[in-house]
Amino acid sequence: MSLVRVHNFSVSLDGFGTGDDQKLETPFGHAGQRLMEWAMETRTFREMGFHGESEGSFGVDEAFASQWGPGIGVEIMGRNKFGPKRGPWDSEEWKGWWGANPVFHTPVVVLTHHPRPTLELEGGTTFYFVDADPVSALQQARALAGDLDVRIGGGVSTIRLFLEADLIDHMHLVIVPIILGRGERLWDGLEGLERRFDIEATTSPLGVLHLIFTRRTTR
Amino acid sequence: MSLVRVHNFSVSLDGFGTGDDQKLETPFGHAGQRLMEWAMETRTFREMGFHGESEGSFGVDEAFASQWGPGIGVEIMGRNKFGPKRGPWDSEEWKGWWGANPVFHTPVVVLTHHPRPTLELEGGTTFYFVDADPVSALQQARALAGDLDVRIGGGVSTIRLFLEADLIDHMHLVIVPIILGRGERLWDGLEGLERRFDIEATTSPLGVLHLIFTRRTTR
Repeated sequence: MSLVRVHNFSVSLDGFGTGDDQKLETPFGHAGQRLMEWAMETRTFREMGFHGESEGSFGVDEAFASQWGPGIGVEIMGRNKFGPKRGPWDSEEWKGWWGANPVFHTPVVVLTHHPRPTLELEGGTTFYFVDADPVSALQQARALAGDLDVRIGGGVSTIRLFLEADLIDHMHLVIVPIILGRGERLWDGLEGLERRFDIEATTSPLGVLHLIFTRRTTR
Repeated sequence: MSLVRVHNFSVSLDGFGTGDDQKLETPFGHAGQRLMEWAMETRTFREMGFHGESEGSFGVDEAFASQWGPGIGVEIMGRNKFGPKRGPWDSEEWKGWWGANPVFHTPVVVLTHHPRPTLELEGGTTFYFVDADPVSALQQARALAGDLDVRIGGGVSTIRLFLEADLIDHMHLVIVPIILGRGERLWDGLEGLERRFDIEATTSPLGVLHLIFTRRTTR
């Protein structure tokens, strides 16, 4: 069966996956760009259109960043990753943060209690708005992915939801050595999670820590 | 001036420096031995009387563990590290967790709102019970340390207190990849702490992460 994977998901040393006060101008809230700075210099993120200072690295950060795309047939994301608006949609004008030709190039399942019509954009990205629990959302995503893997794209509460339901096979986390103090905590409600995973860790010259969680048991 | 140092202080991935439900039988609460397992195999901890499975390692964990003693002239610890009892002392029978000849072999300043007479044990360890704020406690500790450094020995709230007061020069933390879920959080109230420190990180074959905080500015 295809795998369920998380890639490049960054949390602060105190466990926040996003900052406080998220809005249109500050998608990560008061965290700003700090959680994703490590990725900005990688070739993978440069090719996605992010601006960095280098031509794009091939170091350890890129080695991890580049795992994001290959083999993935669909992404599942939370409504809060898709856009800054909460509650019912005022209109269908908002088409995500990613422009006319989004970086995904696959179907994307957006979990929301407020479904809206399927949104097909350029380059193979189609957003499906689905009101479903993790198990059923995963079934729908797999139907869209063919034999390929499913990426859980975030945000924090979506990853936590799939971890709680024990649906994640591989998870690549990046610990950024900053203390955000407030925002949304990844680890809440996940006591003892380590018993279900083998955990590997490595450092990067940029000072971040890559943690790789591999599920111990197979379903 | 002598330095103020923290060594071998372990926190879980979700930032807890001790578990819930601390008592005489379980000094780390529901965390049990899990936060300190990495240290049990080191030569330094074996020589302090801890029991491990090996003869004592000389690897990266030992390289860090062994920094604990040399150059230290005094330790400051919180009342909760000294013993499980909270509030006023019923008697002066409790002499710490460390037996008749404690591992410290220096003066130890115990921060408490309930002072009691100085307690001199074998091997050079003398406990002084002091009701003082961090600045004044540090002054008293330095007077006992001569030219040597001051170790802040924990627990969680004592380290947080000295970090908040910006009194710590070097801090060696160990991130243990477990999710405790509950207990005492190290990072609360320390938003932006990273701006005051250079932070270096390395991994250990045991799977823990060593973080070394070095204060950027000198006093």
